Amino acid sequence: MSLLVTGSIGIDTVETPTGRRDNVVGGSAIYFAYAASFFTPVRLVGVVGDDAPKEFFDIFKGRDVDTSGLEIRRGSKTFRWHGSYLKDLNSAETVEVDLNVLAERAPKIPEKFRDSKYVFLANTHPALQQQMLEHLPSSQLIVADTMNLWIQTERHELSKLLKRIHGLVLNDGEARLLTERDNLIQAAREIIKMGPKFVAIKKGEHGSLMCTENELFVLPAYPAEQVVDPTGAGDSFAGGMMGYLATHDNFSPSTIKRAMAFGTVVASFTISDFSLAGLQKATRADIDARITHLREAMNF
Amino acid sequence: MSLLVTGSIGIDTVETPTGRRDNVVGGSAIYFAYAASFFTPVRLVGVVGDDAPKEFFDIFKGRDVDTSGLEIRRGSKTFRWHGSYLKDLNSAETVEVDLNVLAERAPKIPEKFRDSKYVFLANTHPALQQQMLEHLPSSQLIVADTMNLWIQTERHELSKLLKRIHGLVLNDGEARLLTERDNLIQAAREIIKMGPKFVAIKKGEHGSLMCTENELFVLPAYPAEQVVDPTGAGDSFAGGMMGYLATHDNFSPSTIKRAMAFGTVVASFTISDFSLAGLQKATRADIDARITHLREAMNF
Repeated sequence: MSLLVTGSIGIDTVETPTGRRDNVVGGSAIYFAYAASFFTPVRLVGVVGDDAPKEFFDIFKGRDVDTSGLEIRRGSKTFRWHGSYLKDLNSAETVEVDLNVLAERAPKIPEKFRDSKYVFLANTHPALQQQMLEHLPSSQLIVADTMNLWIQTERHELSKLLKRIHGLVLNDGEARLLTERDNLIQAAREIIKMGPKFVAIKKGEHGSLMCTENELFVLPAYPAEQVVDPTGAGDSFAGGMMGYLATHDNFSPSTIKRAMAFGTVVASFTISDFSLAGLQKATRADIDARITHLREAMNF
Repeated sequence: MSLLVTGSIGIDTVETPTGRRDNVVGGSAIYFAYAASFFTPVRLVGVVGDDAPKEFFDIFKGRDVDTSGLEIRRGSKTFRWHGSYLKDLNSAETVEVDLNVLAERAPKIPEKFRDSKYVFLANTHPALQQQMLEHLPSSQLIVADTMNLWIQTERHELSKLLKRIHGLVLNDGEARLLTERDNLIQAAREIIKMGPKFVAIKKGEHGSLMCTENELFVLPAYPAEQVVDPTGAGDSFAGGMMGYLATHDNFSPSTIKRAMAFGTVVASFTISDFSLAGLQKATRADIDARITHLREAMNF
């Protein structure tokens, strides 16, 4: 089914205990789209500058990702992020960030994408996220991500957004900031009161939890022995989750739970190598094998 | 079956965001014994000073805990610990600690306890832990805990201990310190090479993991919405785990996994109130109900 993602596309420089990569492809929409495309066709909406390396446009070759919503804006520069995990492999320290084209107007959603049923609004200004929805009148499942910056500075717009989406995906620190609750289950319950039907809280190496009005789901992370580069893990989690959901016609708690398990497993491939290399080596069969292994590793 | 525990018995003062309790009963052996006694008879070996409040000796009233290994040493003072969770509910800050009687000679193991099959050596000096084993010739399953201090200062004695025990229970920070591995699965595999047949790593609110030579088990924490006082959670986890194991005649990975789930659930009662109050309110039926709930909350 038609899954649309809109979010950042960036040129990343990443340092981890394993090594360093300069000017590699990154950004929330890229990781999401690649991860979701293991399950379902993906429509990508995003914007880069005219400095984006030619290789960037080859990453989705052979995959069912429609990049006709990818705008190359003349005279603008691509979003750049330089992050370091040298101090803590669980949380990136931003060495440098240049919003560049992301600080300009949002990319246009192509007319032919207007019938998208499944929509993921990766992290950006909550007012922009709402504008996107104006152009997606057929959306039946809208899930969004957000970040500390908007929670702290754009609370009003974020509140409006939360009333219009079905699911929110965010990390533990963001959930605590949004709700001023230290206990994550309490935080999740507070978020449900703000609008979404479900909230998934990502805890990195500690797994994730999901809450609806009546259900609670706790999931450990896939037991990964080699973590090379955690960049994009959260976006891959969301991509795997939404990709799986888009192949189902119901959004019942049990479907969302299975979707989260797939998201967890897809993210385990992302962190196994730099940039997209871990995902590029994976197959759908590899994903299914890790789902089986995760079930076994949790079974008591 | 005969489960023996030896460890600390203390007078605790605890501050948490919920409140403060002065001079309440605490110590690793106390939490362990109470938790294990939901499953099996427990033999307690420990030492206090003659300042131990009379109430301390009533806490096991009505429970199958044999306290004849509890020594009240004249002229000595009971171990005291004052901890605060005001900054971080996941990790205690020690405000003050007085080893007192714990810095003296170890308590004696009563002759009638020498046939104990199941033994838990709660955290103390690894040389003392080994001395205890000399008096327990019938032990078939020996599990120990340890702490940062011994890892840093008594590596040689700890190494000798690790070769004599079947299982090690420790927290994530201790596992990283012991192995110099940041990744906990790698850390667990390193510990297996040091001697134990299995290692259980406790991650507080993030759950636990267990490793044998060939098996890996990951378990989220029980989803607790109210954490009042985390003191004793790790010892209760170990107590629930060993209590369950002592009712089984095999130590297969699948038995240890179920035992860890019981440990996780028992610890969820401990943290729901100060000192032993949470455990004192629980029944075996409550524990079984939470096991069912934990299974449901993990099911995908």
